[in-house]
Amino acid sequence: MTVSRAGSHFELLATDSQTQARRGRLSTPHGTVDTPAFMPVGTSATVKTMTPADLESLGVQILLANAYHLYLRPGHRLIADQGGLHRFMGWDAPILTDSGGFQVYSLAMLRRITDDGAHFQSHLDGSLHLITPELSIEIQDALGADVVMAFDQCLEYPAVHEAASEAMGRTIRWARRCRETVRATPSLLFGIVQGGFFPDLREESARQTVDLDFDGYAIGGLSVGESKEEMLRVLDHVTPMLPPTRARYLMGVGTPEDLIDGVARGVDLFDCVMPTRHARTGWLFTSRGRVVIKHAEYATDDRPLDPTCGCYTCRHFSRAYLRHLFMSKEVLGAHLNTIHNLSFYLTLMTDIRAAIEEGRFDAFRATTAAVYEEVIVK
Amino acid sequence: MTVSRAGSHFELLATDSQTQARRGRLSTPHGTVDTPAFMPVGTSATVKTMTPADLESLGVQILLANAYHLYLRPGHRLIADQGGLHRFMGWDAPILTDSGGFQVYSLAMLRRITDDGAHFQSHLDGSLHLITPELSIEIQDALGADVVMAFDQCLEYPAVHEAASEAMGRTIRWARRCRETVRATPSLLFGIVQGGFFPDLREESARQTVDLDFDGYAIGGLSVGESKEEMLRVLDHVTPMLPPTRARYLMGVGTPEDLIDGVARGVDLFDCVMPTRHARTGWLFTSRGRVVIKHAEYATDDRPLDPTCGCYTCRHFSRAYLRHLFMSKEVLGAHLNTIHNLSFYLTLMTDIRAAIEEGRFDAFRATTAAVYEEVIVK
Repeated sequence: MTVSRAGSHFELLATDSQTQARRGRLSTPHGTVDTPAFMPVGTSATVKTMTPADLESLGVQILLANAYHLYLRPGHRLIADQGGLHRFMGWDAPILTDSGGFQVYSLAMLRRITDDGAHFQSHLDGSLHLITPELSIEIQDALGADVVMAFDQCLEYPAVHEAASEAMGRTIRWARRCRETVRATPSLLFGIVQGGFFPDLREESARQTVDLDFDGYAIGGLSVGESKEEMLRVLDHVTPMLPPTRARYLMGVGTPEDLIDGVARGVDLFDCVMPTRHARTGWLFTSRGRVVIKHAEYATDDRPLDPTCGCYTCRHFSRAYLRHLFMSKEVLGAHLNTIHNLSFYLTLMTDIRAAIEEGRFDAFRATTAAVYEEVIVK
Repeated sequence: MTVSRAGSHFELLATDSQTQARRGRLSTPHGTVDTPAFMPVGTSATVKTMTPADLESLGVQILLANAYHLYLRPGHRLIADQGGLHRFMGWDAPILTDSGGFQVYSLAMLRRITDDGAHFQSHLDGSLHLITPELSIEIQDALGADVVMAFDQCLEYPAVHEAASEAMGRTIRWARRCRETVRATPSLLFGIVQGGFFPDLREESARQTVDLDFDGYAIGGLSVGESKEEMLRVLDHVTPMLPPTRARYLMGVGTPEDLIDGVARGVDLFDCVMPTRHARTGWLFTSRGRVVIKHAEYATDDRPLDPTCGCYTCRHFSRAYLRHLFMSKEVLGAHLNTIHNLSFYLTLMTDIRAAIEEGRFDAFRATTAAVYEEVIVK
């Protein structure tokens, strides 16, 4: 059946008086998610270097996994036969799966988009594939995702109006097919607003997507190379067109500052590889700015990464040790860095939720955002 | 001062009536170690992929680290300035450091051994170094090792009598210099018996090394390519020449079967990269034989690696998931495999200790050893 218990999945607990920020709760088959929430990215059925126990101890409530990757390897049917993605990867809490639209755009080779779907060659072995909207839903359903994303067409940046219009129109037609595809699980289905950086297209996309009555709405096509101002302009424009009773998800975003700016515009869910990928390249977030751990100045620095942080890494190890692990290409370094960066993101979201609940989000935003972005810790 | 509280470091708790196996306890500045014990290898101040908390939860009581690696990177003086190796790597329990003799032999380039010491080029950057017996002790002392190893000369395999004799003689002369080098910490110092596969040389090495009155004795120069029979012949010959009141350490050994065979000949301590290195290449130890996780037969195998194992990996994940992580080159796979392989080794040692205490080691040995070595799980 196509499940749509419209509005019942998202509960609005508090709204900020000075911004569009909202404190909510998303209900899914595998549990609830306190929003605003950040979803760590577990592309191939693992958040890189992290066990499920590690993620639980950080307070992670929802993960993102990628339909594209899992379809190619090990295959969604294999995972279904193994009892679904939750059982396969040992994660009992909610999972949102990306539909594959973005990965076809960013990873696949020789892609050709038609109304049928996305024809492409696997980035793993060059094998030929066609992902249709129906197949994308089938994959995500087979995985047993709690939140299934509609299959969308992503766009080069920058794109001219004609290309953006065509992709937006196709995304709408695909969204309708996704909406009509029968799912075996009681998952939520989110639509995706596209339209590039053209207000008229974003407006039409939002209107038509909302007309299809999804369980939640994502804003796609951002964080693709545009300026921060362009991204915020689209957000300012699109978010008010989305029904306040449904969760809103800003896909692939972003920096700590981006999260705060998104929350201020009424976004409830975020995902980004930034904390985990940056961890592996030694780029670490702290309350006093960024630490690039390979820098020689940290070789003899016996302080924790962030003296105000309570994560396992900061409680037990010095910058000097983390730099040593990085320079020695030791996997433990990537792991400890990932613990820290995810802890930083998760703690930020906890602080954001508390600030909204206590009616002080605007003040929190003013004092916090600038610190993360620009300062490099010396 | 040179610390030697002869005999007081090692307590003999039980001996087996049918073999030379012994149950003991080694006391070090950072705590006691129940023997027979296996020491996971933490070459560069990390047991690869494992946090100290992970190791503690496996019941690890002592780690091995490498003076050679830490001297080259990040430098023993840097670690000393950071409060020593225990604080640097967040490990509060005992650490034994290898002296560098074996790494000079196995890793370094353009090595030239003189009575002064080992001249070599770093395998990291080609820089020129000379490690003397005195420097080796200085490095290990600066690291704050609980057990310091004498600096020895290792030998190509096979070696002729003349070469083996020369290396053995030099190892004795170096052992005397190590014995005379003042250490700042109350560490234990172990001598190393060399002599290749020549009974007369092993005998002379054992006699002269014991004459120097070390806190414990290692048997070096084994597991270098010889047959199992050759290794056991040397062990059978050497172990009875070592004082029963001191701990005995069989360096760089070995397979689960080797550990059992070593224990039966009176060995108390072992170290080997096998469980951790094999974990990273997907070669996994189980109670029913070896699992090579990349094999296609495991792709859809929903059983735990070892149904009788209680480790985190076996409690939460299937062979199919571990194979997926391996095929996807996901770091989590190496981590989960390492947890399992180390758990297997640590559990084996726990079982060995219990069997000795309960007077049934010989029976345990008969029923256990053969299983590990030959069977490949299907």
